[in-house]
Amino acid sequence: MWKPDRSSKKPIFQQISEEIERKIACDEYPPGSVLPSERKLADQLGVNRSTVVQAYEELRSTGMIESVKGSGTKVSKYKLGSSINTPNWRKYLDGGTFMPNLPTIRRIRSELRKDSPIIDFASGELSPDLFPLEAVRQLLQEESFSAVLGYDDPQGYLPLRRVLVSLLSNKLNVQTTESSILITSGSQQSLYLIAQCLLSPGDAIAIEDPSYCYSLPMFQSAGLRLFRLPVHPEHGIDPDDIIALHRQHRLRMIFLNPSFQNPTGRVMSTDQQKRILKVTADLGIPIVEDDPFSLTAFDGNPPKPLKSLDSAGQVLYIGSLSKMAASGFRIGWLVAPHSVVSRLADARQQMDFGLSVIPQWVASEFIRSGRLERQLDFLQSSLFHKMHRLCATLKERLSDHISFTMPEGGLNLWCKLNGEMDADKLLEEAVRRGVIYVPGSVFGSERGYIRLSYARPETGLIEPGIERLAEAIRSL
Amino acid sequence: MWKPDRSSKKPIFQQISEEIERKIACDEYPPGSVLPSERKLADQLGVNRSTVVQAYEELRSTGMIESVKGSGTKVSKYKLGSSINTPNWRKYLDGGTFMPNLPTIRRIRSELRKDSPIIDFASGELSPDLFPLEAVRQLLQEESFSAVLGYDDPQGYLPLRRVLVSLLSNKLNVQTTESSILITSGSQQSLYLIAQCLLSPGDAIAIEDPSYCYSLPMFQSAGLRLFRLPVHPEHGIDPDDIIALHRQHRLRMIFLNPSFQNPTGRVMSTDQQKRILKVTADLGIPIVEDDPFSLTAFDGNPPKPLKSLDSAGQVLYIGSLSKMAASGFRIGWLVAPHSVVSRLADARQQMDFGLSVIPQWVASEFIRSGRLERQLDFLQSSLFHKMHRLCATLKERLSDHISFTMPEGGLNLWCKLNGEMDADKLLEEAVRRGVIYVPGSVFGSERGYIRLSYARPETGLIEPGIERLAEAIRSL
Repeated sequence: MWKPDRSSKKPIFQQISEEIERKIACDEYPPGSVLPSERKLADQLGVNRSTVVQAYEELRSTGMIESVKGSGTKVSKYKLGSSINTPNWRKYLDGGTFMPNLPTIRRIRSELRKDSPIIDFASGELSPDLFPLEAVRQLLQEESFSAVLGYDDPQGYLPLRRVLVSLLSNKLNVQTTESSILITSGSQQSLYLIAQCLLSPGDAIAIEDPSYCYSLPMFQSAGLRLFRLPVHPEHGIDPDDIIALHRQHRLRMIFLNPSFQNPTGRVMSTDQQKRILKVTADLGIPIVEDDPFSLTAFDGNPPKPLKSLDSAGQVLYIGSLSKMAASGFRIGWLVAPHSVVSRLADARQQMDFGLSVIPQWVASEFIRSGRLERQLDFLQSSLFHKMHRLCATLKERLSDHISFTMPEGGLNLWCKLNGEMDADKLLEEAVRRGVIYVPGSVFGSERGYIRLSYARPETGLIEPGIERLAEAIRSL
Repeated sequence: MWKPDRSSKKPIFQQISEEIERKIACDEYPPGSVLPSERKLADQLGVNRSTVVQAYEELRSTGMIESVKGSGTKVSKYKLGSSINTPNWRKYLDGGTFMPNLPTIRRIRSELRKDSPIIDFASGELSPDLFPLEAVRQLLQEESFSAVLGYDDPQGYLPLRRVLVSLLSNKLNVQTTESSILITSGSQQSLYLIAQCLLSPGDAIAIEDPSYCYSLPMFQSAGLRLFRLPVHPEHGIDPDDIIALHRQHRLRMIFLNPSFQNPTGRVMSTDQQKRILKVTADLGIPIVEDDPFSLTAFDGNPPKPLKSLDSAGQVLYIGSLSKMAASGFRIGWLVAPHSVVSRLADARQQMDFGLSVIPQWVASEFIRSGRLERQLDFLQSSLFHKMHRLCATLKERLSDHISFTMPEGGLNLWCKLNGEMDADKLLEEAVRRGVIYVPGSVFGSERGYIRLSYARPETGLIEPGIERLAEAIRSL
């Protein structure tokens, strides 16, 4: 007779419930048949009665068995009908390793999904009128589609990698080659590939505090241990903090967003870049530099990335079209040593066999034809205008309650709530009044901060939005 | 003083090498400094000398330390220069969980990457002249691009899901709704999402033998245990085999390719479909039905998928444009219960934030405008013609050596090598003569079989290709 295996790592109750399920599956216990009482089965198997109770509880929760007062525990009849022979999908859905989003993020998303006219300072993305829709429409009609429709090079469409080599060199002083670029589905896929393929569960990584990275369940899903690198308002990251973290936890990687950082809008100075490159090079720690915003610099003079100073090949550099043109392209790029790019490209083949050549062709023509240049001109002045409107309104209506530093690029304004105001409580009041933002807690340890994205709301809604926020603040 | 932790799961030599690396990183052992001798360190730490030898070997292999005859073991000086402070990427590249491709597959890919004029019966895909390039070009110029360029619905572009609902209903008797469809990057991403999110390492799955699934490292990467379901040439899969496998291993899922199966070209009869649905429903085992080929049926009358008979919601149905139009679209679809679709869509957001809306818009217009219909007409007759040419040539030149059944759709011809010929040895002879195919071993246990794809080579190259194959066979 079957007995639970006490040397197994699997809990006894689970072994029992699985054995019963197996017997039900193989019709040893047909639908409607009565199972042994909890006490009797416990005796047979030589286990505590509470263990059998737990096993039956497990099976009841899946609907496989049911207990009817007075008549014991039975195999559910549902297995008889045809439309109810559905596999127990719940059990499958609980598996896998993907963590859900943070509760606050889910809360915000669910508000935004409602069709109510909420004013959205929460989404860190462009408003649709800032997308180059007309330019893409024209491009599709004017340029003749010429790419091969077969499987693409695992690293991505070669003409796109070529125009990126020029773009990165001309605009950002990043010198690279086609073979060191991987085209990915936005920067998200670059981050995912790094987390999945270069790091292993249990690895320690360091992240700026505050940082949008805390809002990404991806790192937790990969089983990584996250450590905070405080960003001091004046001198930024202290290299000694990196050394101390490394000594204690052996950092495997550091994730930074040096230009118009999300959420703070901060730009890392060249001096600081050099200090950080030096200390991490000495320790042999690679840096992942996420750089979605540098080309949005309002004055058209983008800060140069860490990667432009990286003579050691220690920086994995990530860029994308999402924040400077349109997220719907799903075009991002990773610049890294060829061995890294080639490994990640291989792994990506297993996930999705690469990106469609169509948006890659569109993106390469968009850049090549000068349309990106025009988009950037338009975007820089539009974002500056929206940022300015937001800051002016905040000064006018909320100068006693909120303080901030005007950013010089990017999509976000990082605001400190004066006094003891709780940004999470305030969120509920704000939502009630039809305006939404992201509280600082989502970005790490900082409390009493909120992130307002000026890129997302229509310009005309910025003042009414802040008016609603002011009401919410007054109500507290 | 530091000592290795004997209760840890990490091997002692690795603990030692990591400790030394830590000391080097923190400059306790600066570049050029001499490390203790192997014997001395072994005494200090209370371990065998061979353990220290292994630890030093590990560090030497990363270039961190070097041993010079007569002067012991030193920390490498390379940490001093700037361009050589490169992180040890090799260590990162060995991490992660993505398995490489099978050696035979890698061998074939490397041959195909060479620019030599090899005749390709190996790639199971369409030749470029079968792609609807002209139709796509026209579509881009004629239809005005209208999709929003922001982040798309996590399940995919709604108008595409809508046309798929009609297509699946009209052509394949699959009744579904928009909310039960997930658009993925080809069928590859559907399979990846299922393997990663619905299954867990150690789970048992069953796969037809032979099957293209054996060539996918994806299942091994996900840590799944694969079990073979023999496909009998006449009556197909024996339901008793499913029961037996389930009893022994508790199958979590079964992967099937019922229509023009890859590699055999076999079509599962309706009777057999019903038997398999019944037995798996009774056992509560979900089926993943991969159906890339049904719409290539040469007579325009596609076999109906298992999904068309699935009243229990137990079939996860996967289709794609890759084999019937062009792989470069990277458009596939999964039809599944909404709870499953919604879970996979969520997880996919973490991986790549969804597909670009551009190819999704192209695909929806391609189907809506009737261009897919015309492509299918063209493709069916072209494939029939190529298949026919291949079979006629084989009969003429190799009827003593090869036998096969003519398929009625799909891209592949499954050939039995008569006698004792070894398909893997033959491959080398074939490659030497400028022709390539996939040996049966790649698809599971069958030996003495080869798969010839007639879709890939240009029509005019089919005869010369078989002539070269005949020479290779005669040489053995």
